[in-house]
Amino acid sequence: MSRFKLTIEFDGTPFVGWQRQENGPSVQQSLEEAAAALEGKKVIAHAAGRTDAGVHGLAMVAHINLDKELSTDAVMGALNHHLKPAPISILKVERVSSDFHARFSCYRRSYLYRILTRRAPAALDHKRVWRVPYDLDVDAMQAGADHLIGKHDFTTFRSTMCQTDSPVKTLETLSISRVGEEVHIHCAAPSFLHNQVRSFVGTLERVGAGKWQPRKVKEVLEACDRIACGPVAPARGLYFLRADYPD
Amino acid sequence: MSRFKLTIEFDGTPFVGWQRQENGPSVQQSLEEAAAALEGKKVIAHAAGRTDAGVHGLAMVAHINLDKELSTDAVMGALNHHLKPAPISILKVERVSSDFHARFSCYRRSYLYRILTRRAPAALDHKRVWRVPYDLDVDAMQAGADHLIGKHDFTTFRSTMCQTDSPVKTLETLSISRVGEEVHIHCAAPSFLHNQVRSFVGTLERVGAGKWQPRKVKEVLEACDRIACGPVAPARGLYFLRADYPD
Repeated sequence: MSRFKLTIEFDGTPFVGWQRQENGPSVQQSLEEAAAALEGKKVIAHAAGRTDAGVHGLAMVAHINLDKELSTDAVMGALNHHLKPAPISILKVERVSSDFHARFSCYRRSYLYRILTRRAPAALDHKRVWRVPYDLDVDAMQAGADHLIGKHDFTTFRSTMCQTDSPVKTLETLSISRVGEEVHIHCAAPSFLHNQVRSFVGTLERVGAGKWQPRKVKEVLEACDRIACGPVAPARGLYFLRADYPD
Repeated sequence: MSRFKLTIEFDGTPFVGWQRQENGPSVQQSLEEAAAALEGKKVIAHAAGRTDAGVHGLAMVAHINLDKELSTDAVMGALNHHLKPAPISILKVERVSSDFHARFSCYRRSYLYRILTRRAPAALDHKRVWRVPYDLDVDAMQAGADHLIGKHDFTTFRSTMCQTDSPVKTLETLSISRVGEEVHIHCAAPSFLHNQVRSFVGTLERVGAGKWQPRKVKEVLEACDRIACGPVAPARGLYFLRADYPD
């Protein structure tokens, strides 16, 4: 038995999310079916993050075990072949030891959120960005974001559906930058609560639009109350960017 | 009567191309129907370029005449409203004099072609790039491209369906650059023959892949024979980038 680490790009649009669900196609199901076609029997895939419906992956990491003796190149070719026509692509395959676990070994997850700031709708990137029809003040957004960095009780920024035991998490990075007509939000932490990134983005958008002062972010954080949160930003602008592991 | 210049972004995937055709939806038809909904009667749209099926627009230019007295802001809002859900977005509306013509006044058309050079398929940009599963030699491609710049008989690079009178055109720009995992080809000329850009790209890809020497581009150009051309690159990697007009 060999364990393989997979780096995966996917378009989240047609999926109910990473995880297998009764109500529609998932990235996990497509990947497990491709791996089963290769292996000739059932294969389970474990991933670094369980993204929501519509959220994309630029470099999601998962692992699978295979009994067949195959090179990493052969695994990559076979998986990409069997994944067609699903919009999922295996970018990289690495052989790892059996103590590697895509979820439990991961010490940092990174996300990117793209907001397109212009009056005209997005024709080419409609399912890839959140478009807001006005400009955003990136400096004010960063001032607001700075209140969120560090170890906090993030109850305000947590979906009421979140099943994690504790709302206390440590946010390592929350940086806002302008890239042409877009505002990009980079976010990194050992782990996230359900809807945490999209809740950050929805709140910071209110700050960028001038509707909220940056210091209000500190107040809503300290409220520890879901009701205090800004709107949750749509899934289509969110990308799972990177998973980090010990060497 | 007022004439309006429109700058238009569109996803070419669902369209038979810019021009109205019997066999499917076109960008022109969608735009003319949106304008007719605004004007209350038939409106004709003229564009700088007639893109093929699957070719995208980043900033196509067209013009329409409207009898209604409306601000440019109102025209933009109304057209974008009526265009929904077609993946067409009016980026800019300007009032122009009645001697402005989107096609006949245009003195330069610019195109961008995106080739993704990696083994893994494109999951997110599947309909936006031509993916080739190997690296391309950008310097060799530029050396080949340099033979095409200037005034030439481009019969080799012209679709047999092309209806233009003369195959002689002046190519102003053909520049190749690497952008991350992609190779970008920028192309500008007063006008192009049918399939000319995609024929250039298909030929230069052969050079970048090491299958053709750069000087072979000169030979196939001078052959003035469609058969000498490399494969025609797929439409999905091509973008109408810009149209230039006198002030």
